[in-house]
Order: sequence, then structure tokens, then C-alpha cells
Amino acid sequence: MIFGSDNMAPVHPAAMAALAQANTGYTTSYGTEDAMKQVTAQIRDLFEAPEAAVYLVATGTAANALALAVYTQPYQSVFCHELAHVNMDECGAPEFFTNGAKLVELTGADGKITPDTLRAKAAGFRNPDIHRVQFGSLSIANVTETGSVYTPAEITALTAAARDCGMASYLDGARLANAIVAAGCTPAEMTWKAGIDVVSFGGTKNGLMGVEAVILFDPQKAWEFELRRKRAGHLFSKHRFLAAQMQAYLRDDLWRQLASRANAAGAELEQALASVDGFAPLYRRDANLMFAKWPRAGHERAQAAGAYYYDEPEAHGKNGAPDDLLTARLVCNWNTTSEEIAQFAALVRG
Amino acid sequence: MIFGSDNMAPVHPAAMAALAQANTGYTTSYGTEDAMKQVTAQIRDLFEAPEAAVYLVATGTAANALALAVYTQPYQSVFCHELAHVNMDECGAPEFFTNGAKLVELTGADGKITPDTLRAKAAGFRNPDIHRVQFGSLSIANVTETGSVYTPAEITALTAAARDCGMASYLDGARLANAIVAAGCTPAEMTWKAGIDVVSFGGTKNGLMGVEAVILFDPQKAWEFELRRKRAGHLFSKHRFLAAQMQAYLRDDLWRQLASRANAAGAELEQALASVDGFAPLYRRDANLMFAKWPRAGHERAQAAGAYYYDEPEAHGKNGAPDDLLTARLVCNWNTTSEEIAQFAALVRG
Amino acid sequence: MIFGSDNMAPVHPAAMAALAQANTGYTTSYGTEDAMKQVTAQIRDLFEAPEAAVYLVATGTAANALALAVYTQPYQSVFCHELAHVNMDECGAPEFFTNGAKLVELTGADGKITPDTLRAKAAGFRNPDIHRVQFGSLSIANVTETGSVYTPAEITALTAAARDCGMASYLDGARLANAIVAAGCTPAEMTWKAGIDVVSFGGTKNGLMGVEAVILFDPQKAWEFELRRKRAGHLFSKHRFLAAQMQAYLRDDLWRQLASRANAAGAELEQALASVDGFAPLYRRDANLMFAKWPRAGHERAQAAGAYYYDEPEAHGKNGAPDDLLTARLVCNWNTTSEEIAQFAALVRG
Amino acid sequence: MIFGSDNMAPVHPAAMAALAQANTGYTTSYGTEDAMKQVTAQIRDLFEAPEAAVYLVATGTAANALALAVYTQPYQSVFCHELAHVNMDECGAPEFFTNGAKLVELTGADGKITPDTLRAKAAGFRNPDIHRVQFGSLSIANVTETGSVYTPAEITALTAAARDCGMASYLDGARLANAIVAAGCTPAEMTWKAGIDVVSFGGTKNGLMGVEAVILFDPQKAWEFELRRKRAGHLFSKHRFLAAQMQAYLRDDLWRQLASRANAAGAELEQALASVDGFAPLYRRDANLMFAKWPRAGHERAQAAGAYYYDEPEAHGKNGAPDDLLTARLVCNWNTTSEEIAQFAALVRG
Repeated sequence: MIFGSDNMAPVHPAAMAALAQANTGYTTSYGTEDAMKQVTAQIRDLFEAPEAAVYLVATGTAANALALAVYTQPYQSVFCHELAHVNMDECGAPEFFTNGAKLVELTGADGKITPDTLRAKAAGFRNPDIHRVQFGSLSIANVTETGSVYTPAEITALTAAARDCGMASYLDGARLANAIVAAGCTPAEMTWKAGIDVVSFGGTKNGLMGVEAVILFDPQKAWEFELRRKRAGHLFSKHRFLAAQMQAYLRDDLWRQLASRANAAGAELEQALASVDGFAPLYRRDANLMFAKWPRAGHERAQAAGAYYYDEPEAHGKNGAPDDLLTARLVCNWNTTSEEIAQFAALVRG
Repeated sequence: MIFGSDNMAPVHPAAMAALAQANTGYTTSYGTEDAMKQVTAQIRDLFEAPEAAVYLVATGTAANALALAVYTQPYQSVFCHELAHVNMDECGAPEFFTNGAKLVELTGADGKITPDTLRAKAAGFRNPDIHRVQFGSLSIANVTETGSVYTPAEITALTAAARDCGMASYLDGARLANAIVAAGCTPAEMTWKAGIDVVSFGGTKNGLMGVEAVILFDPQKAWEFELRRKRAGHLFSKHRFLAAQMQAYLRDDLWRQLASRANAAGAELEQALASVDGFAPLYRRDANLMFAKWPRAGHERAQAAGAYYYDEPEAHGKNGAPDDLLTARLVCNWNTTSEEIAQFAALVRG
Repeated sequence: MIFGSDNMAPVHPAAMAALAQANTGYTTSYGTEDAMKQVTAQIRDLFEAPEAAVYLVATGTAANALALAVYTQPYQSVFCHELAHVNMDECGAPEFFTNGAKLVELTGADGKITPDTLRAKAAGFRNPDIHRVQFGSLSIANVTETGSVYTPAEITALTAAARDCGMASYLDGARLANAIVAAGCTPAEMTWKAGIDVVSFGGTKNGLMGVEAVILFDPQKAWEFELRRKRAGHLFSKHRFLAAQMQAYLRDDLWRQLASRANAAGAELEQALASVDGFAPLYRRDANLMFAKWPRAGHERAQAAGAYYYDEPEAHGKNGAPDDLLTARLVCNWNTTSEEIAQFAALVRG
Repeated sequence: MIFGSDNMAPVHPAAMAALAQANTGYTTSYGTEDAMKQVTAQIRDLFEAPEAAVYLVATGTAANALALAVYTQPYQSVFCHELAHVNMDECGAPEFFTNGAKLVELTGADGKITPDTLRAKAAGFRNPDIHRVQFGSLSIANVTETGSVYTPAEITALTAAARDCGMASYLDGARLANAIVAAGCTPAEMTWKAGIDVVSFGGTKNGLMGVEAVILFDPQKAWEFELRRKRAGHLFSKHRFLAAQMQAYLRDDLWRQLASRANAAGAELEQALASVDGFAPLYRRDANLMFAKWPRAGHERAQAAGAYYYDEPEAHGKNGAPDDLLTARLVCNWNTTSEEIAQFAALVRG
């Protein structure tokens, strides 16, 4: 009954096997190995982007911060939702990698930004105005930090608003596989066809050991990305082991299988809890992640029996109420079983 | 009828005379001249702070950003009002000088933060939490960006809340003279006695050509400040001309005389406009600066006759209403005459 | 016949087995797993440093740049050999992580700095002098970039000279295991007992997949290191797989066995080449790495037969001579066999 | 007998008069005043560069660091002479403003770089190589830090070598007036006609209070420069007083008159000292600045009589010799009289 985070889950056997298979003899290092060439070709195919530049890093924060740095000058800004991972959960990595760009917080229901909110906030900056930071980039996440999923149409509208301001658009895809599955669209439809300039395609939360692809649809940004990755210590010498994981992820659409299972588990979990007395979701759930509240006794029973998940009181600002409801963030993953969901729901229900 | 900014005003004759007087023969450079020793001694006296380190820079942005950099690590944050100059009007200077610290926006009536708002926002950061930026400093301005003035008691309460979180407290004193006059307190009461760690004492907006003193009450921070100032290109070689201006400012409390006149003009202006039909202040005015709205026709009459002031619609979020009221920011200064106020009010009134 | 780099070598089977073993079920993330607690305890034991803070990162550049950032302010400097990896091979990572500290280049035979060179260079900075960058840290590598090894006595003398200037001392230990084996000393003797404040203990070049430990002998620096690591995107969510590798490395002194083999191979290789006509080492070789030159024909024969190694002409400034001698960097590793050495030497000899 | 620095000298009366004249009533701020428009037009005329963007800052370090930041990415480098002001005397300002670019030191007689030295050093970087910092810009100063002057032909050859590497070329013109006078060329011949992309035109050391113009020959860099200047706190609100000084400087070629006098004084001083027993210049003197050594007794006599100048032993590495010769840096300025030169030389001679 572990719903703490998809990064607490084990690595999928196929990824482990790929690592073992990659460990044969000598290979050139720093991403020059053949496996990386294949990864690039496969991702270009998958995203229908034959010119795209593709790079691998080992953490989601590295992917986010490097992608934003390529598109945001120090005297510019990143517009994002106030609850965004880049804004709240990376100890200022985007500010570090961009050399001090400002993250501009937007609000919005279900962790989503709307084009109207973006335009209204942007208007307050009166760009170009020498006294203000300038527009650099828009950063959205899909799946969002609160568990909802933007549709391709929503992304298209958002990136259009961003483009009107002169902003590039980044999609934090730490859970991109889950978002694509949830939206029922193609990778291209969710990204460049929707106006996204650069996207991360996360593997770590979806069954890999530690790999995220960053896909730059404008290959002219490739060299700068490479230099920033190296300078940030994120170019691996034994890079073949990143490439191997990504190969496993792409083979037979493993990424899709795993995300499908995680999303299905999320739906099961929501349904199982829905009948709990006092249960109330905080945001719309579209994938494998949800925030919800229910009476304290249900928490105590589940936790006493070994259930593990995060309490997220302050950031989501809903707790401490006299009504004795406590908030939880619950995350399913590729490895979550229907049995543990049922067991957990039974405990919560009491 | 110039109410555009106190930095549009001329330099007071005493400051001009001091520049001429300082221009005799050779002097050592980079702040080692005797005049600076006297400035330090005088400011220590004025602020009743015999150990304080005192430095001069030429712009308010330099003063703010350097002071914050000394007290805020890159992985930390600066808590400030969302309308603060450091947040909105310096093109990201605090982020640059701190190497990427995050400015955390607080809201509050009249451009002021309250201890409760500060504590509530801080709670959401759950510090120490490795995923969040850490608490670095609180930055408040007096006079605030909207024209109100914190009392020493209010500052004391705020810095206590900040200290509870482990934050240092910076007071942006671009208009400190005006704030001190408005509050009827001593410089010490408004600063270190109220828990402030570092303060700027602005001269540029109050009759000087371009000088701000930065006063660090903890002399252990002095050397780091000096290094950061040099590294930022803000250590003047012909520093004697900064010192000379500050000497003029301190002589016979010129700073107080000029601020008193500017504040009095602000009060006159507010009173003169109060009877205008449809006139409505946006914030409390305590010193020489105010935001207010009134019918469009009054704006047109005044501007046609040569009145000059800023429209600040977006940042202050009050315009565009169908009621035909337009917002203005009006700033008086040491040189504002009662005649131009009367003339302006008459035009607005129609 | 691969002498390109120790990072082209495969991962040792024990490390692969440890990864598989760590992949059982759920674990907490971000370094909070039990395995990391054991790693910390084991490294404290190995280094006889019961208070040391121990962290894992995945690349040598991350280890170097983070360690230096903790000990070097932006307005300070890092003194290092002009050929140092931190100076030449990290695309400016130390400058990035320190927010712009200056790397001050020292010269010295065999890639080594001497206390006299350090003192002489430092004297030129006349610290404290507001116009100069200040002394921050000394960075040395062991094994050095050219293949020599500092003895504990040499390190002690160097760190004493650094301390006299107020510099902290960092030891880049990407090949620390090889250096310890070569010097025949204990880890403690080569590090804190010799005045080192912070050291990296590299695994990637010595049989692991991608792990370096950073050991801070002053635990008061721990939290800052953690924050900088997170902010740089170098805190792994599935951190257990870093810990697992390091556990394998520490078990039965695997690090020592592998380094011993690599060093022995280096000695064999040097000996085998010594009799080649025209063979000349560029620097003293103490471990698994050497630079040498020999006639062009020998290079051509070896490379035609599949030998792989780097030509390093410019940085080491010895090529282009009319004598037809070409320089090579040759690196052995834990997996290098006596057979390939013999085969290679035979080809070079012709 | 003050030969300490040209920044110890008084401000020329014409500049003081211009300040007084500019202090009439209200003006718009932040460089939007009419006077700045005139300055731009005049400098475009003087430099025969009708498209150039022209900005004013108050310190030479600000001018240098901002200009370099516009042309040097964080992952790039600035090639400069090891004795350059940007390298040795700005506490790392270029590193700060560029967000961590690396300054690459070149050697060369008389404080000058040659194209051969530049090409040889550049070759060692093997750009493009992901492990190295990339080529960003070349920075030279004229007058150089040691008192020599590059001819337009020398600059042309250097910038051509830089361009071959993909580097832009910056000319630190803190003493540009002196260099132009010494070379007997036009401002255009020394700058854009010689391949310079951006130049500072210093006033502070040549009779102004604190103004340097930065001239960007590529107007496409203008807006970025403006943003960086603002973000660095170097955009003055009462900017009219910078413009006024520069207007005085340009009127009737005051800059040329003052530099001519300073250079002539330099020549007089050199000639007067040449006959001193044991006198030896360290570098070629072409303008108002020289380094020389002579016996200790001469120093003691002059200093006892009130002469003031800098000893520069370490950076210029020539002192401490057993021969009892001590090095001095001697700087003349627009205000230096033939009488003080004669008096000084007599004292040194004994």
C-alpha cells in the first residue's frame, strides 16, 4: 500500500535487463555510443519530429532547468502555475540554471493555467518595459502537479497566448507518458503540434531507474543545450546506461504499457475511495495522481496498517480545518496492484 | 506641475555646492577619502549605531540588490510585497545579485505586509525541506511602493516574524527620509531598534544627484558588502563626489527638511484633490506619494495643460473599468510648490 | 586494446548484481533509504571520520563543482593546476556552480602544484585587496590529470600553504582509489589527515556505473551541500541505485581491488612500451594513466589494428614537432588484460 | 606630485559647469532626457557610426562587464592579457556579469596580445569540444594596463584572429582618448574600422566625474545591453547628469585636449626620469601611464617630499631583487603640471 510517489517504485525488469545487456565490453562515452543514435532515431519517430534534438539526463529537475535555461535569458521570466514543480519543488533550480530569471506565478483551478490568466498576468508586465523582467518562456506540466491533464487543445491555446507575448513553451513531461495515455493522443499532438518548443519525456517515475529525455523541436538550440548540460555536470560518461534504459522504454511501447497501468490504478483508487464517507477530491484526477481529503480516523487506520503516502497540508492550503478532514496526495505507479488498492480503501473506509 | 517621480526633480543647491567644494585638487579614490570617514561617523551618529558599516552607491537598485545579496544565499528566498520595487521594477536585479534567489510575493492592503501574512506564507514552505528554497530575508520598503508608511511598531512586529523563520530584515529606504518624517520617529527607531539588519538611506529621490547610503548594523557583513559592491561595478573611483553629496544631505538635517517639504506637498495635493468629484485614493497616503483615480476628463484637462505623472494601470490592477475612472501615481518632491498643486487640482476639478 | 578512458570500461559484475538486488519493491526516495545510511557509516569508517557528511552524486563534474561551491564564494577564487580537469574539461562547471568564482591557474611539473608555486601566485593577489578576487579554495586532483600521484606529505604541505592564505582544500578524487593504492596510504592519510576539507571518492572510472561520493569532513557544511545538490538537479529520486553501487564498491574493498588491477596494468603498459624506440613519457606515471610520445609509425600500426586512445596534442603542448613523435594519453582500468597490453606494445614496437 | 592614478585628479571645470547647467527644473529620467539624444548623435558622428547604440554608465568596471556580458555566454570565455584590468582589478566583475564565463589569460610583452599568441592559445581549446568553454570574446584595452598603445593595424590583426575563432572583440577604452591621441588616428579607425564590436569611451580618468560611454556598433545588441544595465543597477534615474558630463566632454573635443595634455605630461615625465641613474622602464610607454624602476633612495626622497604613486611589486613580478631597484606605476592626467614633473624628477635624481 505505497502511494507515496511513483519514484518509490521499483525499476521495471525490462529496464534492468537492458542495463545488463549494455554492460558488454567497451563503448565510447559521453553520449557518443551507438545506442544513443538509436534512441534519437526512435524518439524522432515516436514524436514525428525528424529534426528534433534529443538528449538524456538522469533527473527531472535537470531536464526542467536545462530546457528552461535554453529558452529563458537571465533578465526574462518563466510563467508557470504557482503549484508547479519548477516553482515549488526544485529548490530554485530554474533560477540557478537560468542565472536568475524570475518565475511568475499564475493561479488556476486543478493546477492548470488558462490563456486568459496568462494574458492578464502578462499585461501587468507592460513588456517591453526596461524596469520589468521580460517575457521568456511558459512552463506547464502534463500530468500537472495536482493530477489533472491538459488536452492538446488546451495546450494549443496556451502556447498561442504565450507566443503572442513572445514566450517559448516548455512542457514538463516528468509524467508525459501518463498524460498521453490519459488524453488519448499522440506524442506529437501533445507537444509540437500543440505549439510546444521543448518537452521532457520522463522515464524515472514510470519504471526506469533514472532517465528523462529532453526533446528540442528546434535543432538550432541543440548545441547550447549540450553545453549547458555538460556545464551542469549532467553529461554522463557512462552514458550508455542512460541510453539502454530509454531503449527499453521505447521498445514495444513499454512507456505506454506502464503508464496505462498506472493510470488505471489511479482510476481504481479514486473509485474505491469515492464511497468513503467524507471523501472529497481537491482537484480533478486524470491520471495516476490525486489529492483528496477524508476523515482523520481513516488516515489513522490505513497508516497503522502500513499505508504510505504524503500529507501535503500547507502547499495545498486546505488542512487544519476544524472538520477533521486531512489531505493526502496519492500516487499510483506501474507496479500498483488492485489488491493493495482494495486493501487500502477498505482500511480508509473502516 | 510635474508629479511624475521625485527623480525628475532638480538637485538641491546645497548638494551642487558640495560637489563644487569637493573638486579641489587631488584625493585618494575608491572611498578612502577623508570625506567618507566623516560620512560614516555622521551616519553612525544619526542612526545611533556606533558599530555600523556605511557604504555609498549611486542607485537605489544597487543599494537594494547588494544589501539583499549579503543576506540571501542563492538557494534562499526574499519575502516581499508583490508590488515591491525589488519585485517589479528592477528587471530582476535582486535575482542577479543574489545569484538566483527566489522572490516570494506577499499580498497586503496599502502595499504593506502583516506578520500574519508572512507567517502563513512561510508555513507553506515547510522549511527546512530540501525541495524548497530556504528562508533568506524579508524586504520591506518605507515609504512603501504605494505611498503608505510602516510605523516602527509595525516594523518591529514584522521583523520578529521574519526572525522566527530565520530571515534577516532589509529596509528599502529609497524614501527613508520621508518615512521617518511621516512616522515622527528617529532613524534608529525605524531601523535597528525595530529589528532591521540592513537599510538603505536614499538621497537621490530627495534632492541629491545620485547617492544612497547602505547601513549594515552588523559590521561582520561589511567586507562581503564591499566585495560585492566592487564586483558589481558600484565602487566609484571618484568616490569623493558621492561622499560630498551625502555630507550636504546630513548637514543641518537637510534630508529632513527636504522630506518634510515633500511630505507636506503630498498632503496638500491629497487635500486639494479630495473634493474632486469621483476622486478616490487607491491606498493610504502617508508621505509624498499617492495613487488615486478620478474621471477621465480631469486627466485630460490637466495633461493638456502640461501636467505630468504616470498612469499605472496594470500593476495596480484597478483600471479599465467601465466607470471612466483612470488611475494616476502622483509624487511630490522637495521642490514641489503649493502653486503647482493648486493649479493642478483646479485643472483636475475642472 | 582500449586505452581511451576508464569510463569506456564496463561496470564490474558486483555493481550490476547490487543494482539488481536493490530493485526489490518500494523504498523511500531522495537518499532517505536505509542503504544510504549504511553507506554513510561505511565511508565514515573507511575514512576514520565519524562526523563526516557523505553524499552521492552521479558524475565527477557534479562532485567537483558542488564541493567547490560550498567552499568558494562568487567573489573568491579556486587555485588549481592549469591542466586540472576542473579548469579544462568541465565546460566551466566550477564557474557555474560557484556563481562566477575565478579559477587561478598554477603551473608545475607532472601536473602537480608545489607550495612555493602556490605561495608565489597568491602573493600577487595582495589579499585582502578590494580590486582582486579573494582566496577561496585550493583544488588538487589525485591521481592528477597527467597521471602522477601526490603523496600524503605533499598534500599536507600544499594544504598548509593554502590554509595560510585562508583557502580551504578540495581533493578531486575521481581516481582517489588509484591514488590511495599508488601511495600505499590510508584514505584518512590522503585526505583529512593531510589537511583536506572535502574530497570526492570516485567510483565511475573504477568499475561503477555512475557514482561519486562527496565527503565533507566539516559536517557544518552538510546542509548547504544538500541544498546546492538539489538545486543543481543532482539529488536522485531513485537514490537507492546510487547507494547500491557504492555499497558494492565498499564491500570487501572492491574499490581497492579494482584500482590495484588498473594501476598494475598501467605499470605493465609503461614497462612494455619503455623499450620502444623513441618512446618518451611526458610526465611521471604513478597509477593507471600516462601520457607518452613515440614515432608516428607505431601509432599507425596500433590504431590500424583497433587500438583506441586519445591524442592530446594541444593541451599538453608537446606535439607538432618535426621529429615525428606523436603524443598519446593511455588509460588502463580494472578490466584491462595483460594480453591486450602485450598485443598493443608489440604493435607499437613494430 | 600626485602620480597615483588619473582618478585621483579633479573634475575639469567644464564638466562641473555642465552639471550646474543641467540642474534646471524637471527632466524625464532614466536616459530619456533630450541631452542623451544629443550625446548619442554626437558620439555617432565622432565615431562615424550612424547606427551605433550609445549608453552611459558611471564606472569603468560597469562598462567592461556589461559589454562583455552582451557578447559572452556563461559557457564561453573571454580571452585577455593576464595583466588586464578585467582580469586582475575588478574583483571578478566580468565573471559576475557574464554569469560565470572563464577569463583566459594570454601573455605578451608590453601588456599586449599578438595574433599568434591568441591563435596558439585558442588551438588548445579545440573548440567546438563539449568539455571546454567555448570562444566568446576577445577583450583588449587601449591604453593597455601597462601603458602601451595598440595601433589600429595591431587591433585589426587581433580582431581578425578573434573573428576566425568566432570571438567578438571588445575594446576597454577607459583611456581611449589617450590611446587615440597617442596613435594619431580617428575614433573610427581605432574601433569599428579595426574590427571592434563594442568599445567603452572613458571619461572618468580624463576629467569627468564618473561617466563612460559604451558604444555598440551592432544596434541589435542594444536592447539586451539596456536590460543588463538596468538589472545591474547601472541605469541612473537622474541620468541627465551623466549626459551633461558627456556633452561637456564632446564639446570642442575637450576629451582630446585633456588626453593630449595627459599624454604630453607622460612623455615629459619619462624624459625627466630617463637620466636618473638606474632608471629602467618595465614596458613601453605610449601615453600617460608608465611602469619603471629606480634605486630605493630616489623613492624615499620623493615620497618624503609628498610624492604619491603606487608600488606594484607582485602583479608585475619585478621587485624584491637584491639590486635595490623598486618599481613604481606613475600616471599623469589632464591636470599634471610641468612643474610637479620637474620637482619630482629632481627629487628622484637626488
